[in-house]
Amino acid sequence: MLRVFRKPVTNSLKCQAERHLKGFSTVGQAEPCKPEIKTSVPGPKTRALLQELSCLQQAGSVQLFADYDKCIGNYFVDADGNTFLDSFTQISSIPIGYNHPALLKAFEDKHNLRSLVNRPALGVFPAVDWPQKLRDVLMGVAPRGLDAVTTMMCGSCSNENAYKNVFMWYRFKERGEKADFTPEEMASCMANQPPGSPNLSILSFKGSFHGRTFGALSTTRSKPIHKLDCPAFDWPVAPFPRYKYPLNQFKSENQEEDNKCLEQVADVIEKYKKKGCPVAGVVVEPIQSEGGDHEASPEFFQKLQQICQNSGAALIVDEVQTGGGPTGRMWCHEHFGLRAPPDIVTFSKKMLTGGFYFKIEKKPAHPYRVFNTWMGDPGKLILLEKVLEVIKNENLLSLVNETGKILKDGLHKLENEFPHVINSVRGRGTFLAFNSTSTECRDRIVADLKKNGVLGGACGEDSVRLRPALVFAPKHAAIYLDILRKTLKGI
Amino acid sequence: MLRVFRKPVTNSLKCQAERHLKGFSTVGQAEPCKPEIKTSVPGPKTRALLQELSCLQQAGSVQLFADYDKCIGNYFVDADGNTFLDSFTQISSIPIGYNHPALLKAFEDKHNLRSLVNRPALGVFPAVDWPQKLRDVLMGVAPRGLDAVTTMMCGSCSNENAYKNVFMWYRFKERGEKADFTPEEMASCMANQPPGSPNLSILSFKGSFHGRTFGALSTTRSKPIHKLDCPAFDWPVAPFPRYKYPLNQFKSENQEEDNKCLEQVADVIEKYKKKGCPVAGVVVEPIQSEGGDHEASPEFFQKLQQICQNSGAALIVDEVQTGGGPTGRMWCHEHFGLRAPPDIVTFSKKMLTGGFYFKIEKKPAHPYRVFNTWMGDPGKLILLEKVLEVIKNENLLSLVNETGKILKDGLHKLENEFPHVINSVRGRGTFLAFNSTSTECRDRIVADLKKNGVLGGACGEDSVRLRPALVFAPKHAAIYLDILRKTLKGI
Repeated sequence: MLRVFRKPVTNSLKCQAERHLKGFSTVGQAEPCKPEIKTSVPGPKTRALLQELSCLQQAGSVQLFADYDKCIGNYFVDADGNTFLDSFTQISSIPIGYNHPALLKAFEDKHNLRSLVNRPALGVFPAVDWPQKLRDVLMGVAPRGLDAVTTMMCGSCSNENAYKNVFMWYRFKERGEKADFTPEEMASCMANQPPGSPNLSILSFKGSFHGRTFGALSTTRSKPIHKLDCPAFDWPVAPFPRYKYPLNQFKSENQEEDNKCLEQVADVIEKYKKKGCPVAGVVVEPIQSEGGDHEASPEFFQKLQQICQNSGAALIVDEVQTGGGPTGRMWCHEHFGLRAPPDIVTFSKKMLTGGFYFKIEKKPAHPYRVFNTWMGDPGKLILLEKVLEVIKNENLLSLVNETGKILKDGLHKLENEFPHVINSVRGRGTFLAFNSTSTECRDRIVADLKKNGVLGGACGEDSVRLRPALVFAPKHAAIYLDILRKTLKGI
Repeated sequence: MLRVFRKPVTNSLKCQAERHLKGFSTVGQAEPCKPEIKTSVPGPKTRALLQELSCLQQAGSVQLFADYDKCIGNYFVDADGNTFLDSFTQISSIPIGYNHPALLKAFEDKHNLRSLVNRPALGVFPAVDWPQKLRDVLMGVAPRGLDAVTTMMCGSCSNENAYKNVFMWYRFKERGEKADFTPEEMASCMANQPPGSPNLSILSFKGSFHGRTFGALSTTRSKPIHKLDCPAFDWPVAPFPRYKYPLNQFKSENQEEDNKCLEQVADVIEKYKKKGCPVAGVVVEPIQSEGGDHEASPEFFQKLQQICQNSGAALIVDEVQTGGGPTGRMWCHEHFGLRAPPDIVTFSKKMLTGGFYFKIEKKPAHPYRVFNTWMGDPGKLILLEKVLEVIKNENLLSLVNETGKILKDGLHKLENEFPHVINSVRGRGTFLAFNSTSTECRDRIVADLKKNGVLGGACGEDSVRLRPALVFAPKHAAIYLDILRKTLKGI
């Protein structure tokens, strides 16, 4: 059991020293010492491949083609032989860097290989070691107070199934625990009509991103391009705080912003109850990511939980992007000092498998309701097991805090040096972001960073986000900051 | 390129002989010669594991725990050491049997291993060999006339994203090709309201199963337990033929049934157009699987396509369960002699990766619209490549037809021998089913089959379905039929 994550990891000289003696330094040694750009970006081979791919699908989102045989640690190598420092890591989904030896070795074990190749229908014929794997791997890092877990495939379907669980629980309470489905419910649901298909809703926040399948997309409120032309449920939306920075200069304004948003959450819940579509659950990211890296205070989340408890709505914390360590704790919501655990915590990305944690007493009363053919993938749990071992053995949560501090201090210096270009540095651990003055300017920063050898991510209207792997060390932070300074000078 | 699948595979003595000389016989030799049940089913170890798993999640759907180190070919070995002949194969998702050597070897290649371990965001940073992999593997078996493909994770998200593609295409046509999104659309979609989130629908059929996320679930019409308590879109449903068997005795009745259903399809499309929620797409399984293995005639599908073309609705053929060979052709709809290809064909299960084929001219005009972090998984394509090589080299589509004929003939004999217990034998290839006289009787057949050493699947109200792997040979068919006879005698 990897219970070590229960305690906030302290950053001591001892653990730093240990890190340099263990596997981490091995990866470090194999890495190039800096980015190296040999061609225009995108280079000629990349452009040719893009043309090839565009004959088969809409490929307008493709930036680069990777040579995954050559990528290593924090460095990404493209088709043209250019080497980039990666601060975006496949939309935040590579936890311990490229080609980590622990992952390359995972399937040398024949049992692991067979688990990968004989992919079961986990809800019907799981392997004999599945209960133990769930306990050792996923429950070993479960958020405090959540004692059950369901695996899924990706972030969207984790959220979709979390919502289903919440709707089932809501109706279970309404029915009274012993009542079973009525004939009217059984018949009406087959026609997609209430009461079997009830008018219930999930409340989400302006700027949120929870995925792109139709249920998840009805709660995603980040950008029109994600939503246009797709039918959506008439579900409620409330504002999420938009803070002024630096935080310590705008305490009262930001507190007022919290209260204004929370008031509207309560109002919207009341409004949807009155219009016959009660809010069964509230879904929230601990830091709104795709929507622009908007953070909110611990007090905001504490009060939000109180509103949920008062109204009977479940609180679903979507840790698809924040989970797995990048904020310096295993789960970002651990920073908030909530009085009780959230009802559900969803995950994916750095966790490699999708899924959600919940309380066992809230599991659906009947089987085959939160279910699908695969229900996840044991091959991903095998890799996750190795990832968690590396996080523990190499004390990577401590490294995240250490590197994060260097990065954030450096970004603050840069926002003071280039106030006409960037501002509003924010975030936790290495899960950091800053704003630019316009979408155009932001896009130019990201494009120029790339030309200068750094892969970075955009989010929201005018933000740049940092999503490095957990093995991003102070030396990588120094390179990132140097290249960012060079880039900002050129803007 | 595996273009061999383009032609219907003929079943010759030559290819039978070849099969016995090649890899297939290797697997065959390693298999036990018959099932062996040593304990009660479920046995004591299975019951203990179930209790363990139930502490962590709703595990009421779990039947057995598998010892995947011991499963081999068509044989499934459980925690208690019982060996079953598997005619259900993880809800039809194990294409070439357990622990096939070709799959166990796939990741000995270091490049393949790195592709597995460094899972990319395929929509942004695919590997340099990704366009070629798509062409060689997925396009090598593409349904005739479909020249584009998008990979996804599973069946549900393949269907969800196919629907999104259809909605985007529908609005693209409505707007006129050059018009871009209006400010009103951009604003309204953020509030989940039309015109940005339009009132458009997907028509599906009674008894259909298309997945369990909210969009897919709104088109699933198989059983209440799949749908209860989940909000659903008010989308239309039409009847799917329910035939009388044997087909050659009820030709005119079944033809009438086709026409009655098709008339209602046309009526419902008209009705939803009038009520302001036009049908943008019609989704249909070539054989309704989960809903009870209901088949329809080639003429039904030909006329359905005509209705779609007349009304401007896209025809989406959901081959998640039928695709990949079990009906004796790579795609079941190839049996129907359609005059033009369907607009979209979705897949998953035996294809190991999810995804959908379509026509390149119907790709969304903008990037980032049919998109998510992973967009599938290169590790699954590597396995699929090996599967398709085995299908080709071992001529497995021919084996499916050969074994299927033996199975179907045997089932017809059994329905004549036990007419008070089973009837309505039907299906294509080894994708076969029969009915029982009641749900209770069907459940008993499936339970007794298991006690006698055969894993089988239930579907619909009273049906038993056969979903063996493509390596299910005549000798396995003989064992299956023997045990089914013994089971039916005991009912």
